[in-house]
Amino acid sequence: MAEVKIDLPAGGYRIVIDLFAIDNLGNLIKQLKLSGKAMIVTDENVGPLYGEKVVQVLKQAGIEGELAVVVPGEDSKSLAVAGELYTKAIETGLDRQAVIVALGGGVVGDLAGFVAATYLRGVPFVQVPTTLLAQVDSSIGGKVAVNHPLGKNLIGAFYQPRLVVADINALATIPRRELSTGLAEIIKHGLIADKSFFEYLQANRKEIIARQPGNLLEMVRRSCEIKGRVVEQDEKETYLRMILNFGHTIGHAIEGNTAYSVYTHGEAVAIGMHGAALISYYMGLCTAATLAAVRDTLEQFGLPVKASDCRPEELMSFLARDKKSIDGAVNWVLLESVGKVVISNKVPQDVILKALTDIT
Amino acid sequence: MAEVKIDLPAGGYRIVIDLFAIDNLGNLIKQLKLSGKAMIVTDENVGPLYGEKVVQVLKQAGIEGELAVVVPGEDSKSLAVAGELYTKAIETGLDRQAVIVALGGGVVGDLAGFVAATYLRGVPFVQVPTTLLAQVDSSIGGKVAVNHPLGKNLIGAFYQPRLVVADINALATIPRRELSTGLAEIIKHGLIADKSFFEYLQANRKEIIARQPGNLLEMVRRSCEIKGRVVEQDEKETYLRMILNFGHTIGHAIEGNTAYSVYTHGEAVAIGMHGAALISYYMGLCTAATLAAVRDTLEQFGLPVKASDCRPEELMSFLARDKKSIDGAVNWVLLESVGKVVISNKVPQDVILKALTDIT
Repeated sequence: MAEVKIDLPAGGYRIVIDLFAIDNLGNLIKQLKLSGKAMIVTDENVGPLYGEKVVQVLKQAGIEGELAVVVPGEDSKSLAVAGELYTKAIETGLDRQAVIVALGGGVVGDLAGFVAATYLRGVPFVQVPTTLLAQVDSSIGGKVAVNHPLGKNLIGAFYQPRLVVADINALATIPRRELSTGLAEIIKHGLIADKSFFEYLQANRKEIIARQPGNLLEMVRRSCEIKGRVVEQDEKETYLRMILNFGHTIGHAIEGNTAYSVYTHGEAVAIGMHGAALISYYMGLCTAATLAAVRDTLEQFGLPVKASDCRPEELMSFLARDKKSIDGAVNWVLLESVGKVVISNKVPQDVILKALTDIT
Repeated sequence: MAEVKIDLPAGGYRIVIDLFAIDNLGNLIKQLKLSGKAMIVTDENVGPLYGEKVVQVLKQAGIEGELAVVVPGEDSKSLAVAGELYTKAIETGLDRQAVIVALGGGVVGDLAGFVAATYLRGVPFVQVPTTLLAQVDSSIGGKVAVNHPLGKNLIGAFYQPRLVVADINALATIPRRELSTGLAEIIKHGLIADKSFFEYLQANRKEIIARQPGNLLEMVRRSCEIKGRVVEQDEKETYLRMILNFGHTIGHAIEGNTAYSVYTHGEAVAIGMHGAALISYYMGLCTAATLAAVRDTLEQFGLPVKASDCRPEELMSFLARDKKSIDGAVNWVLLESVGKVVISNKVPQDVILKALTDIT
């Protein structure tokens, strides 16, 4: 068992990471001293695997849990589905001290978190991420949202969970591509903040890909630690937290340009990190060796570093619409060395175009 | 000109109260140092009176403002109308440093505030309340919400404005009943926290009812001051802030029992305060003189103290569903003396029934 604590002005929370962490979920929630009611939001993939189990362990802890099962996939991150969950919450009689539990991947976490943030002006929220991406990234830091027809995550809040419970055993059965998508964000955490963690990943690559529980647990723990430290310093993404967007500026453009149907989020971010490393190299910020370390490590973990189906000009037009731009200028997260990044809104257009040409 | 400052952990804000405060709105928003874009949410009643004026004063301050006009009335406080405002915000190109301005009464403030709280995970929000109720109550304290078909204000957030601008001149033209509904909350502020303010209201009753600008300004200022001090101590209504619900427990039951179509919110709260004072008296918490002061003052300000169209048993059944109940027990705000209340969840059913019988 490992634990990462997140300290925030409005009260911190624990990330509990363990091989069969779900078995202990009832006790962990009981320690929060809430009322005896819970709504467990999950989807049709994860529900059959862990839904009844969660209801059981909650019941043993004296908490009455009701399952709310949504259709898997991004389309469930909508105001309409949120509306259905509010109705279910009211009908279940959830009060302000009841808890909403997100059991699943990023979609379920973002959706359930948005409902928890807005139902009765906010009720306690617990994340039980069952994918690697959710365990190391989306379940931590309080970003919750639903999509708008005109763009992803445009409706949301910063709303911290009261507890995160990451069950390493859940990673045993996720598809290989879901593992990879999480690995991209994990590699990112090494690149932006922790050289020794990056080296750990390189040294333990085979064990990680073979899903050795001990290595997965250590990797998730250190990854949560890094993200947690960044979130603690800048909960609402006023500046520092932007470093977590390393690789995401180009990644989002690739996802948009391919209508979110070719690459997983992590794959797009992997290509985006390669692109950001190229920009960094062209601007003289990092060495060729650092650029090579980024590219080689991504490839060794089975991640793509090029999007040959995209055209540089089209990616450029998506960059112009980046929602994290301030006064119209994109804030680029660039690499100085492994473990060290800088934020810059002064990247020449021709450098961007050159990097985009290299990765397409 | 008067000003009340609200101090909160995440940053405070100013309430600027003035006779023609809207004339200065552009400068006041400019001082917040945001980007040059604004969406001004208003309704078809208030829009024609002040909409173009606000666009003009913003323009003079270098801020490009776009009007978003909704249908007046409670039905606009819905996820559907919020959805239309998100679309408008995206199409207008509002970024994270743009501002959403609520220009109108409580409905507009709650709706626009909910959109501001959730668009791009929260954008700067400015309240320009144009009714007395909004100026002294709903625009302060950060409670924003939309309704769910199963109940009012069930979807929302605590989201503080960056600035509140109360234009006393706007009160010159509101209907008499809208003035009264605000006066009920103002009298409440005296009763729960400030005996000298209560006495000020009694002593200046004629001037207030005649809408003397100087008296209105002083009354709004002191009322904002009282509410602000309570909100500062308990932003998210964990306990103390509940005292603001004095009169609201029975008030909400009356509103529900009459389908929100007979009494204004303030009228229902006035009857509710009378009911709460009766309970306080029957429980030996306050004297007969205090009870009489509550009843007489409400009547002198033209507010009702009885709901003769309601039946006590029906009101009881609405009380059982009170959304501020914790573990099923209603938290009653009761009066000890003018300016002093206590919170109790131990009121015998027969005392409640007796008070409800008296006020129906």
